[in-house]
Amino acid sequence: MRNVDGTSAILLTVDVVILTLRDSSLHVLLVQRRAPPFAGQWAIPGGLVQSNESLEEGARRTLYERTGIQNVPLEQLHTFDDLDRDPRGRVVTVAYCAVVPAPLAAHAGRNAADVCWQPVRMLPEMAFDHAKIVQFAVQRLRQKLAHSAIGFQLLPERFTLSQLQRAYEAVLGESLDKRNFRRRILQAGVIEPTGEVLFGDGRPARLYRCIPSAVAEVKPRRVFP
Amino acid sequence: MRNVDGTSAILLTVDVVILTLRDSSLHVLLVQRRAPPFAGQWAIPGGLVQSNESLEEGARRTLYERTGIQNVPLEQLHTFDDLDRDPRGRVVTVAYCAVVPAPLAAHAGRNAADVCWQPVRMLPEMAFDHAKIVQFAVQRLRQKLAHSAIGFQLLPERFTLSQLQRAYEAVLGESLDKRNFRRRILQAGVIEPTGEVLFGDGRPARLYRCIPSAVAEVKPRRVFP
Repeated sequence: MRNVDGTSAILLTVDVVILTLRDSSLHVLLVQRRAPPFAGQWAIPGGLVQSNESLEEGARRTLYERTGIQNVPLEQLHTFDDLDRDPRGRVVTVAYCAVVPAPLAAHAGRNAADVCWQPVRMLPEMAFDHAKIVQFAVQRLRQKLAHSAIGFQLLPERFTLSQLQRAYEAVLGESLDKRNFRRRILQAGVIEPTGEVLFGDGRPARLYRCIPSAVAEVKPRRVFP
Repeated sequence: MRNVDGTSAILLTVDVVILTLRDSSLHVLLVQRRAPPFAGQWAIPGGLVQSNESLEEGARRTLYERTGIQNVPLEQLHTFDDLDRDPRGRVVTVAYCAVVPAPLAAHAGRNAADVCWQPVRMLPEMAFDHAKIVQFAVQRLRQKLAHSAIGFQLLPERFTLSQLQRAYEAVLGESLDKRNFRRRILQAGVIEPTGEVLFGDGRPARLYRCIPSAVAEVKPRRVFP
């Protein structure tokens, strides 16, 4: 596309990575593209930004149009700009990310043939650089897990220590020692027992919740002073 | 500006925040604009992205054109998109940031009337949303200081513990207790003595350097497990 003054335009899009836990593994929301380029391939929901909307408004709008999903807390992730990322020309995309406690109900909307929640470890061949964007989001979540309260966004309001451990293991992609995990999370002073007990398959398990002030601070114990 | 198809174009720019220490306080590189809008006002260096360059290449190019500065390690900071941030129309800017150990030699280049290193606590009235972008960069540096090795980018290769403490204090904007600071930084296992001693005004001071492997890992002690 060319501007009236003859210069090539750079087009601006937004794309949305939504991550959640299902069956103790990290999943991402994908839509199957209906139109070229990459018709039939899987992608994360996204589209062109309109000139009268903010990037976050564009991200919310395209997410809603493609999947019917609304009201998720989006955070700007990174702007991706490989020169050849879109066969139609120069397109820069600003990626947004949301981390939610369970798969959201979604349906195939405008320009989408299908929609699914896919394990991030088994991504299909994807349109554009969307596999790279998803991996970037997972990597960022992993980094933030160590020094912020972002992990709790993957959990319901009240959770057991086993659920919390499984969430950490899903994001980190590794098993954690149960005793160490419990000791450290309790020492960190960011969760408290609700006084309730969950009766499940095994032994009854205490329910916990975040301590709102602790989480609001998101104040890491400093490594460097 | 309008595209050939009649839609309004969104223009894409890059802007660069360069932070450093001078006289134990955090400074940012500013250029005085020569042309409207905001002629005569101070701004961070930046400009339109060309369609055949990556955003980072655009950031390096405009930084060089405006100030003569080259070869700084740029990192993408955030994309700023307030609808009214530029009086010329809809312009989205991707901000890049560099943290360097000392003010770099700079001169007023293309479209720049002057250039200076300014304390971040005493920003002048600035063009566009550039004051907001600088504050965002400072805030991000503050956050990263607690759990990464970014603070060392403000220091020369070999430094005293007093220099290191002054760098932390400059970024955090608060005084730190000397004993606690020294104990914690030495416990963190990220610096080691070089065996050399600096003779200055006061008592001779040991010189330290980062332990490269420790810093390469940038592995925080985890708050949450």
